[in-house]
Amino acid sequence: MTEIVKKDLLYKGKAKEMYTTNDPDTMWVHYMDQVTAFNGKKKVQMAGKGQTNCEISALIFKDLANHGIKNHFIKQIDSNNQLVKRVKIIPLETVVRNFASGSFEKKFAVKHLMKFDKPVQEFFYKSDELDDPFINDFQAEALNVATEDQMNQMRAIALKVNDRLKEIFSEMNVDLVDFKVEFGIDSDNQLILADEISPDSCRLIDRDTKKSLDKDVFRKGLGALVPVYKEILGRLEKVEDVK
Amino acid sequence: MTEIVKKDLLYKGKAKEMYTTNDPDTMWVHYMDQVTAFNGKKKVQMAGKGQTNCEISALIFKDLANHGIKNHFIKQIDSNNQLVKRVKIIPLETVVRNFASGSFEKKFAVKHLMKFDKPVQEFFYKSDELDDPFINDFQAEALNVATEDQMNQMRAIALKVNDRLKEIFSEMNVDLVDFKVEFGIDSDNQLILADEISPDSCRLIDRDTKKSLDKDVFRKGLGALVPVYKEILGRLEKVEDVK
Repeated sequence: MTEIVKKDLLYKGKAKEMYTTNDPDTMWVHYMDQVTAFNGKKKVQMAGKGQTNCEISALIFKDLANHGIKNHFIKQIDSNNQLVKRVKIIPLETVVRNFASGSFEKKFAVKHLMKFDKPVQEFFYKSDELDDPFINDFQAEALNVATEDQMNQMRAIALKVNDRLKEIFSEMNVDLVDFKVEFGIDSDNQLILADEISPDSCRLIDRDTKKSLDKDVFRKGLGALVPVYKEILGRLEKVEDVK
Repeated sequence: MTEIVKKDLLYKGKAKEMYTTNDPDTMWVHYMDQVTAFNGKKKVQMAGKGQTNCEISALIFKDLANHGIKNHFIKQIDSNNQLVKRVKIIPLETVVRNFASGSFEKKFAVKHLMKFDKPVQEFFYKSDELDDPFINDFQAEALNVATEDQMNQMRAIALKVNDRLKEIFSEMNVDLVDFKVEFGIDSDNQLILADEISPDSCRLIDRDTKKSLDKDVFRKGLGALVPVYKEILGRLEKVEDVK
């Protein structure tokens, strides 16, 4: 493999910048020291946040690949930078919930952290103008957002990811409340897991203290965020079979 | 069959009253001369409205039964009253859309009456307090609103109803934009179609004039409603194989 060189900024998201490289199939991801919430309405710069998320996401994606879940991660370059496979992102957020929280809790007026007998899967249409509406398979197909087959694949993979993440977080004495993932189509026309998996995209609760160990700390203004993310990274690094 | 006698008012909805009868498996439905919209916020009394809906719904339910779609309709008693099988209503509105309108159009900011390549099916959770939220199968199961098997049955039946309604309305020179139905569980534990099918629950557009021939006339204040409903009844009575 020739050395990968970072080239042009292709896309700047809320927490990451994506750069092209000298390899058309490889992207350079820079994790920014920035955190946002409420569709970007709340935004703060935080030293160490990018690095922590970059390392957490790298560990989890490597583990998922080891467990047969194909994803875009190639390798970590340094503290804040990764190489990933270039994919065309499907504009759906795939959410899996094990306990009620966030929009589910609000919409259905149920008890905070009510436990579900089986995981609840939801799709949201990634559209800032429409405020990321909740969408079902028929609607997404009608709007040409994804095909029926792609949605069935995303649902199945997300539920597998949930099974593995629950195992990992359980070892960390943490309950996985919910998480969102995104998927993309690679140059071989394969649908694979993409984006990131981190405390930005998961809701995590310490089993003893019942405290949030995720972006809810920032959303709800519960204290410093980076130490919480570092706590997650520290516990994750201690999980025996995650390397 | 012994004569059915109306007994106690069991439930008063927005457009119908349901009474028990001397037969525990039979309910007496009175179609009221009342029309409401926006979750009951707009409400008007209208002579002739109950009768028209009662007759339209009776014709359609009889036709659906003739086409193998089991439903709660037993027989019409007089202009405003029907007998139906007693069922336990599943608190989901099952919607099928052939063209974009209403909440779909608003939520996804698409062109009014955009035609779908295939029907779009949606469930809404019947809850006045929660304002009838849009719900998916996982959520409905988590909330014990319906089982996975029931949702699959409701979806399949609603799509069959759509196929037949499109045929009927096509004969009437009318496009079926969308409709909602409700289902219930009868005393034999069978899931069957219930509630009503009428211009209260369907969006209908005249193919030539492009005018609404349904409750949107009332929602949008486009003119007198009962003559529009009578127009639908008149055309329906002329359809050769609907009796």
